[in-house]
Amino acid sequence: MRYELYYWPSIQGRGEFVRLALEDAGADYADVARTPRRGVPALMRFLESRSLRQPPFAPPFLKAGGLVIAQTANILLYLGPRLGLAPKSEAGRLWAHQLQLTIADWVAEAHDVHHPIAGGLYYEDQKPEAKRCAAEFIAERLPKFLGYFEGVLGRAPKGGHALGKAASYVDLSLFQMVAGLRYAFPRAMARLEPEHPRMTALHDRVAARPRLAAYLASKRRIPFNQQGIFRHYAELDA
Amino acid sequence: MRYELYYWPSIQGRGEFVRLALEDAGADYADVARTPRRGVPALMRFLESRSLRQPPFAPPFLKAGGLVIAQTANILLYLGPRLGLAPKSEAGRLWAHQLQLTIADWVAEAHDVHHPIAGGLYYEDQKPEAKRCAAEFIAERLPKFLGYFEGVLGRAPKGGHALGKAASYVDLSLFQMVAGLRYAFPRAMARLEPEHPRMTALHDRVAARPRLAAYLASKRRIPFNQQGIFRHYAELDA
Repeated sequence: MRYELYYWPSIQGRGEFVRLALEDAGADYADVARTPRRGVPALMRFLESRSLRQPPFAPPFLKAGGLVIAQTANILLYLGPRLGLAPKSEAGRLWAHQLQLTIADWVAEAHDVHHPIAGGLYYEDQKPEAKRCAAEFIAERLPKFLGYFEGVLGRAPKGGHALGKAASYVDLSLFQMVAGLRYAFPRAMARLEPEHPRMTALHDRVAARPRLAAYLASKRRIPFNQQGIFRHYAELDA
Repeated sequence: MRYELYYWPSIQGRGEFVRLALEDAGADYADVARTPRRGVPALMRFLESRSLRQPPFAPPFLKAGGLVIAQTANILLYLGPRLGLAPKSEAGRLWAHQLQLTIADWVAEAHDVHHPIAGGLYYEDQKPEAKRCAAEFIAERLPKFLGYFEGVLGRAPKGGHALGKAASYVDLSLFQMVAGLRYAFPRAMARLEPEHPRMTALHDRVAARPRLAAYLASKRRIPFNQQGIFRHYAELDA
């Protein structure tokens, strides 16, 4: 099956969690909005289509044969077993998905730090609010999420992955969280990572997976930048 | 199967989306933290357990036999087919779940209107920020979400439900969104509802379902209040 991923071409964003799974599995896929012939107009046609029976609310979405699947965690729920990145049992898949939805909540909070008032306004229009928000995020939420996943890694059967022995899309997403948070909040993460050694070790283990390492070194990996979810504003990194 | 729902006993909150499904299906369940003998301590024991291999990050979570399932949308993903409130096909279940995850995003935004800086601070500590946030939410996001689901209802095969002929947990959740938003933003909703007649009709149709109507009239339905996700602050309802 050749998959088609539809996501904004200039940011990692939420689409990156899907890209990491497709890349790690060596899947056959097109990153549609980044292909010169199709680009963003191909993505917009889906969003604006009046004939599509099951329209996505927002990117990312994945075309898989006749299916169009949206919502990052839902895409991974679908892809996981097909790419060998999720357990086969229902209980295992529910647990993986539960962790992914908790990561989704973390992503939303990390985004809202620089956009606490509205996603439709510029950062420059909400700087004082963002500064307050960042202080709370770093003091309360960042340690809470890191601590939770550190605990999950500590309880998993030996093997150093979130679900135990086998790697899953959850590990790839946790790698992305550590990488993104290091970009956005280098000072806070330098302080917090020593208390969460399993998260750091997981990040390194995922980054060393052969296909992932090749992807991360390639031009397909869009660099972190100031338009994505993880943004570095020095004034927010206390 | 007797299900055990674990959620805060004094608010509707995210747990209500699960309660509605259990009630509509006439399922055998205990709302554990609301039972006098067990109460909130029974819930806290799960959250603080060091022996639980798959700990929830936060309520709600559902105990179903040996499984403990957290994240509202994940609980509904599990319960849906078992309660006759989701399609049987994989494609149908993914579409229902995709809609539910979009509702989850909407819920989070509706909550953050009164807590834009941090969930851990009081509303009184973030009133000016909440006022800015509410203006954006009402002008931009509320019409966007209402319009999206109005479009979904318009495209569904005739039958007046989100997925078409058969009612699903998505319909129950959309009922809850309309009810909650009416409580929180009565002026804004009075203005917007006439433009979204399918959403209003769906709300009424769900409320008239016999088991749901009995539930809504019972003491099991906790009234909306100022501790939940949907809160009425007149100054935020422009």
